[in-house]
Amino acid sequence: MLDEDLSDIPMTVAGLLAAYRSGATTPAAVIARVLEKIRERGDDGVWITVADRAMLDARLREVADLPRDLPLWGIPFGVKDSLDVRGWPTTLACPGWSRVATDTAPAVQALLDAGAVMIGKNNLDQFATGLNGTRSPYGIPRSVFDDEMISGGSSSGSAVAVALGEVPFAVATDTAGSGRVPPALNGIPGFKPSRGLISTVGLVPACRSLDCVSLIAGTVDDLATVFDVVSGVDERDAWSRPRRRTTMPAPEARIGLPEADELDFFGDDAVRQAHLAARDAIAGAFPERRQVPLAPFLAAGELLYQGPWVAERYLEFGDFMAGHPDAVHPVVAGIIASGAQYTAVDVFRAQYRMAELRAEVGRIFEEVDVLVLPTIGTTFTVAQVLADPVATNTTLGHYTHFGNLLDLCALTVPTGVTADGRPSAAMILGPALSDDLVLRVGAAVAALPHALAPVH
Amino acid sequence: MLDEDLSDIPMTVAGLLAAYRSGATTPAAVIARVLEKIRERGDDGVWITVADRAMLDARLREVADLPRDLPLWGIPFGVKDSLDVRGWPTTLACPGWSRVATDTAPAVQALLDAGAVMIGKNNLDQFATGLNGTRSPYGIPRSVFDDEMISGGSSSGSAVAVALGEVPFAVATDTAGSGRVPPALNGIPGFKPSRGLISTVGLVPACRSLDCVSLIAGTVDDLATVFDVVSGVDERDAWSRPRRRTTMPAPEARIGLPEADELDFFGDDAVRQAHLAARDAIAGAFPERRQVPLAPFLAAGELLYQGPWVAERYLEFGDFMAGHPDAVHPVVAGIIASGAQYTAVDVFRAQYRMAELRAEVGRIFEEVDVLVLPTIGTTFTVAQVLADPVATNTTLGHYTHFGNLLDLCALTVPTGVTADGRPSAAMILGPALSDDLVLRVGAAVAALPHALAPVH
Repeated sequence: MLDEDLSDIPMTVAGLLAAYRSGATTPAAVIARVLEKIRERGDDGVWITVADRAMLDARLREVADLPRDLPLWGIPFGVKDSLDVRGWPTTLACPGWSRVATDTAPAVQALLDAGAVMIGKNNLDQFATGLNGTRSPYGIPRSVFDDEMISGGSSSGSAVAVALGEVPFAVATDTAGSGRVPPALNGIPGFKPSRGLISTVGLVPACRSLDCVSLIAGTVDDLATVFDVVSGVDERDAWSRPRRRTTMPAPEARIGLPEADELDFFGDDAVRQAHLAARDAIAGAFPERRQVPLAPFLAAGELLYQGPWVAERYLEFGDFMAGHPDAVHPVVAGIIASGAQYTAVDVFRAQYRMAELRAEVGRIFEEVDVLVLPTIGTTFTVAQVLADPVATNTTLGHYTHFGNLLDLCALTVPTGVTADGRPSAAMILGPALSDDLVLRVGAAVAALPHALAPVH
Repeated sequence: MLDEDLSDIPMTVAGLLAAYRSGATTPAAVIARVLEKIRERGDDGVWITVADRAMLDARLREVADLPRDLPLWGIPFGVKDSLDVRGWPTTLACPGWSRVATDTAPAVQALLDAGAVMIGKNNLDQFATGLNGTRSPYGIPRSVFDDEMISGGSSSGSAVAVALGEVPFAVATDTAGSGRVPPALNGIPGFKPSRGLISTVGLVPACRSLDCVSLIAGTVDDLATVFDVVSGVDERDAWSRPRRRTTMPAPEARIGLPEADELDFFGDDAVRQAHLAARDAIAGAFPERRQVPLAPFLAAGELLYQGPWVAERYLEFGDFMAGHPDAVHPVVAGIIASGAQYTAVDVFRAQYRMAELRAEVGRIFEEVDVLVLPTIGTTFTVAQVLADPVATNTTLGHYTHFGNLLDLCALTVPTGVTADGRPSAAMILGPALSDDLVLRVGAAVAALPHALAPVH
């Protein structure tokens, strides 16, 4: 009876808030159903730690005393297990590294202050190193589209939990695409704001100079609602900067599209056809379109994993790996160890090149407001990734690696399915601080006729 | 007769333009006098290359055909010998490195286009490495205050040429204080704009991520005039950005002053007393004053020469030094070679710290518009610097090292003389793109009663 009632209520922030307001359901009923769903799924690798019933009951009593008009009152959510929550273990998907956090990341605290109910900590590629979702001792989450298909990473569990309808949103991270590739592989939106708009305090760094807290949700509107709650200046975050509120309506946005020939789908014709069809639909919806070169973006992306930024991961985890040689996933360990080989000269040389590319991209964004690209060029099975972990990962990051290096913001939105039933996604990219417009354009793109029917 | 006429005309941009307009003199007469002055001084280490009479005559014929209302019509100037001018050798004060430039730096070209007449290339500390002016095989320029006193560096020749009244202005550079320490030691103003406002194309880099083209002149008004000519976006410069025009009147500026106890004069009581007297005069002229902490600025400065940024110099000159072990000044070679020891991890760690300090300083500049500091805490003789080249250099950069690392703009203005006849200077520092206000405040400070009488 309870289940039947809830199945009519969309597992979205907006849907739950409306249902609470109308009395159709209660946070207690929803949280009970969330726990049941997670239990039903069993050992699917989506969660590393889940709150127990007593903890959630206590939290629900707190929430009951909070003002009902709080923007996330009674809304369940998941937290990527690289973000600290006081009293919870932060594992980074590495049991040997795991420790209990003594403070709560301000981004999570803002959600709790807004009335949200944290369900647990989601699985990830170990040390947030990977875009594939196969690098965790806590299991390999699978795409909701196909049990053979990777979930994407590193925010693997976060994306699958949302796509399954277990929680309406999740807090994740994005350094090289971790907040965009998994939503794309699970048919849901994911938002990587401009660097510094959401505090990274309490996030265990991957590449500290590039890391962003990101958001994953079932709808772009929910992403915007959650972003309003978590964005804000934090003096403890050296990269923090204020959000720039803008009001340009989406249809006025000048859309940049690369030549179709510049897009690489790695021989995957089904993904190619689905994306080009989505592009046509998008082009039809935005009168102001310009062709833009993709080369400087891709050149920046190639510098990320072929360049010295991996030394940032070595800086964070090199000492731990030296002291615990068997604690780290061998692929992750190999990547991070490679950071030791770079010199200061390598860094400055790469940063000079990046400054040139950033200037070039800045000039492109004088001509267009946003750029529309595929989020991923193809999909992989778990078996394919395990057989060739580094090359498949590089392919997955083809369109996402450059985002933070070039100081962009980005939103991935589902754009239907391929002829063979796999997810298609478009990515809306804008220059730093154009987040509001990117969200508005993304909402318009998601609402086009190609839009994917909800999976759950 | 000619000399007598010219001695009444101030060797400033404004003075010469007025004299040309009134017919009191001509560019040809002024240029002839400039060459005579330089010849009279003999081998003083101020110039590395001087245009010959035939070249200048040809240039004067060109200028005669240019519109007379050009902002620098007929105005002589010097160029630091790390900036390229087509057909001229660029030596970097290293004969073994020297090469003839095939293009003219856009900053120099803008001056030529505005009607200015280049007299020659000025001496510098080799590879622009040093703040003292003693590291050049082309001689050691001396301060115009005392033949035993260093000129300061690396823009040694530029500052002395202006202070002597040989040219009204000079184009120099500033990475760690090279455009501020020499003017301070010669009793004239020097301006280091925000990074990216003057193109660095055609400048042989010292630390490419920090280098600025800077300006040295006899008056702050002349600096502003020349800055108007040379500032502008250059797509070939990856750090280029547009100037921000602002109109806040100087008296409204909120002036930040550190506690006097935080200022270090290295035991030099005469410089201390002169600076504190200047501070009092400045404080009297600006009603809005706040006390600000100096510690984050100094911490950033310490990171510059104790940190991995020296690897940028190694990146530029390491190969040359390896191939020409005897061509480089031993102190310069030692400094640059130290850049090879730093790893990528060192760079990222230092950049994280710098990001924190930049954020802290950003918050200080929410409370004040400009900061007023000494430009130098003490002076040195040539003998003192030669006896202890590295420690004296570090002392000279105490207040200037942090400027570019923290993305500030800065102006040094003379503030009278010490009781024992040495120059006293104040530095006006502002956040990036506050150049217009810094120039306006600097003009007001320079006009206060303490202002130094012209030396020449």
